[in-house]
Amino acid sequence: MLDTTGELQLIDVGEYTTEAGVTLPISIAYQAWGEFRGDNVILVEHALTGDSDAATWWEGLVGSGKALDTDRYCVICTNALGGCMGSTGPSSARTNGVWGSQFPALSIRDLVHAEAKALSILGVDRVHAVVGGSMGGARALEWAALYPERVGAAAVIAVSARASAWQIGIQTAQIAAIEQDPAWRGGDYYRFAPPIEGLKTARRIAHLTYRGELEIDERFGTDAQENENPLGPYRDPDQRFAVQSYLDYQGTRLTERFDAGSYVTLTEALNRHDIGRDRGGLNKALANIQVPIFVVGIDTDILYPYHQQEHISRNVGNLLGMAKVSSPVGHDAFLTETRQMDRILRRFLSLLDA
Amino acid sequence: MLDTTGELQLIDVGEYTTEAGVTLPISIAYQAWGEFRGDNVILVEHALTGDSDAATWWEGLVGSGKALDTDRYCVICTNALGGCMGSTGPSSARTNGVWGSQFPALSIRDLVHAEAKALSILGVDRVHAVVGGSMGGARALEWAALYPERVGAAAVIAVSARASAWQIGIQTAQIAAIEQDPAWRGGDYYRFAPPIEGLKTARRIAHLTYRGELEIDERFGTDAQENENPLGPYRDPDQRFAVQSYLDYQGTRLTERFDAGSYVTLTEALNRHDIGRDRGGLNKALANIQVPIFVVGIDTDILYPYHQQEHISRNVGNLLGMAKVSSPVGHDAFLTETRQMDRILRRFLSLLDA
Repeated sequence: MLDTTGELQLIDVGEYTTEAGVTLPISIAYQAWGEFRGDNVILVEHALTGDSDAATWWEGLVGSGKALDTDRYCVICTNALGGCMGSTGPSSARTNGVWGSQFPALSIRDLVHAEAKALSILGVDRVHAVVGGSMGGARALEWAALYPERVGAAAVIAVSARASAWQIGIQTAQIAAIEQDPAWRGGDYYRFAPPIEGLKTARRIAHLTYRGELEIDERFGTDAQENENPLGPYRDPDQRFAVQSYLDYQGTRLTERFDAGSYVTLTEALNRHDIGRDRGGLNKALANIQVPIFVVGIDTDILYPYHQQEHISRNVGNLLGMAKVSSPVGHDAFLTETRQMDRILRRFLSLLDA
Repeated sequence: MLDTTGELQLIDVGEYTTEAGVTLPISIAYQAWGEFRGDNVILVEHALTGDSDAATWWEGLVGSGKALDTDRYCVICTNALGGCMGSTGPSSARTNGVWGSQFPALSIRDLVHAEAKALSILGVDRVHAVVGGSMGGARALEWAALYPERVGAAAVIAVSARASAWQIGIQTAQIAAIEQDPAWRGGDYYRFAPPIEGLKTARRIAHLTYRGELEIDERFGTDAQENENPLGPYRDPDQRFAVQSYLDYQGTRLTERFDAGSYVTLTEALNRHDIGRDRGGLNKALANIQVPIFVVGIDTDILYPYHQQEHISRNVGNLLGMAKVSSPVGHDAFLTETRQMDRILRRFLSLLDA
C-alpha cells in the first residue's frame, strides 16, 4: 500500500538476481508525496549520493504548486539499490554480519529492475513520467529501454547514453583512492573505523567534475583560507587555499552521511552504464526506444558534456524535446539552477498533456 | 662554460633564497644543442614531469632543420629546481641524508630565478626567446615579468596568468592522494619504499586533465581490457576497463621515472603560480610586461581552458601574437600535435626577426 505522507518507507522486494548473475534478498526504501490516483505518478530518480528525499534535495521543484506539483501528481522517489539510505547495499546486515565485499556488483539496469519490482508491490504498474539527473538520468533512460509499457515519458538530464572512457577513468581513480585507504580493508571495514580519508579524496575529485571551473574560480580564485597561509616557506597540508578548504569540507560532509561501500558500488554501476549493451549497440538501442524522451543538458558540464545529450537527442527513437541549462555551475546545475529547471520540467510535462 | 653536446651537465649555483625565505645550496642540470653565438639562445621550459632532454620530449620540434633549429639557435633546457632529473629537489642528498620534508616550498618564480642564475654562470646573459608549455609556459611568462632585460620574447603555451581555483583543487587532491599513502611518511620515505600507489593515483587523475575526453573516448570507449572482464558478478580491481588499464600504465610508468617528492613540490609550485602576486594584481602585472609575448592555447584543454590564454592575450602589455591548436587531445596537444606546433613556433620566431 503506497504511503504518500513523505515519510521513509521500506519495501521487502524478496529475491533479486543481478544482471551479472548474483541472487540476493533486497529491500527498497522510498518516500512519496501527493495523492495517488493510479495514472498520476512521477518517479524521481536521485543522483549518485542522493536519497529518496526528493522534496528536500529538489526542494524548489517538488511540492505543492511547484513544477513537480504534488497537488496534481503523486511524486515517488526510491533510494537506489546499493545505496545506504534504507535500500539494501554493502552496509546492510545479512545473516552473518554485513555484506561488505560480498555485496554483488550492480549495473544501472539492476537499480531500475529493483525499483520496478518495488513499484509493482506498491501497486504502481505505470508511471506518468520518470525524471532524473546524472545517475538519475541514466536510470530514467534505462526505464524507457527496459519497461516501455510502464513509462509515459522520461526526462533524461545531464547524462550520456553510456559511460565515456573519461568518466570511467575519473571514476575508477576515485575508487582507487578509496581502495588505497588502509581502513577500506577490501570493503570489509564495517566492524572498524570507515575509510574516511579515501572517501574524502574521492569526493574532492568528484566535486571538481560536478562544478564548472568558472564558478569555482569566481568563488575562490587563489584566495587563502581565512587565518591560513598556503604560501609559507614549507609546504603544510594545514595551510590551505580557500578552494582546498572548501573541497575538504565537501569531502568531510559526505563521509558524515554516506557509506564508502555504497559510493564504490554505485560509482561502479555508473561505469557499467551502457544503453547499448546486449541490445545491438548504442545507436540501435537508442533508436528502439519508443517512450517519449525529453533530453536536458548543461552548457558547462565537464562530467557529462553537452555533446553527449545531443548524441541522445539525435539517436533516440522518440524525441519529445530538448533543453539546455545555461549556467557557470557545471554538472550540478540541474540541482542549483531552480528557475531554469522549473521552466524545463513544466514544459516537459505540458508536452505530455498536449 | 656552456656545453652544447646535448649531454646532461650540472651547474653549482651556490646558495639560493626562496620567495618564501628559505636559503639552501642548489644545483641546476641542463642540456644544450647547437652552437652558442651569444645572441642565439632559445630557452625551452619543460612541463611538470618533464626534464632537460627537450630533444627527446619535443623531438619533432627541437633539432637540425626543425622549428627550434639547432643549426641556427643554441637550444638550452634546464631541469627545474625541485625536480628529480639532476637539479636539486626533495630527493637530493644533503649533509645528513636527503632533503625530504625539509625541502622548502617553491614558487614558479623560484624555478625561474634558479634557472636565471644558472644561465648567468654559463655566460648566457640574454636569451633570444623562451618557450614553454604548461608549467613551462608559467615559467616562460614569469621570465618575461622577472627578467625583461634578459628575454627577447616569450612563447607562452597552454597556461594561465595564475592558477585557477579548479587547478588548485585538482592539484591539491592529487597531493592528498600521495599524502594518504602510508609509504609517503610525511615526505621522508627516501630510506624506504617510495609511495608508489599514491603517486599512481595522482597521475591517473592528472592524466585525465591532460587529455581531452573526446580523444580518450575515441580510443577506449567502454572496452574491456584484453582478457579482463569489468562486468563480472563482483567488483574486482583486477578486472578492468581498457581506459583503467591505460591509466594504471600511465601511473606505473611515472613512478618508474619520477620522484613523488618532486611531484608534490612542483605541483605545489603550480598552485602558487600567480603573475599578479606582489605586483598590484593580475591585470596590472600583465599590462606591465613589455617583453613581446606570443600566446598559444588548445581548443579542448580542460586543465588550462582556452579562455585563460585569451585572458593573457587581452591583458599582456606587449602581445606579439596568438595561436590556437585545434585537437581532440586536450592539454597534451602541445606535445603531440607536432605539425601545428611546428607552424606556430616558426611563426613566433619569424615575427621576432621581422
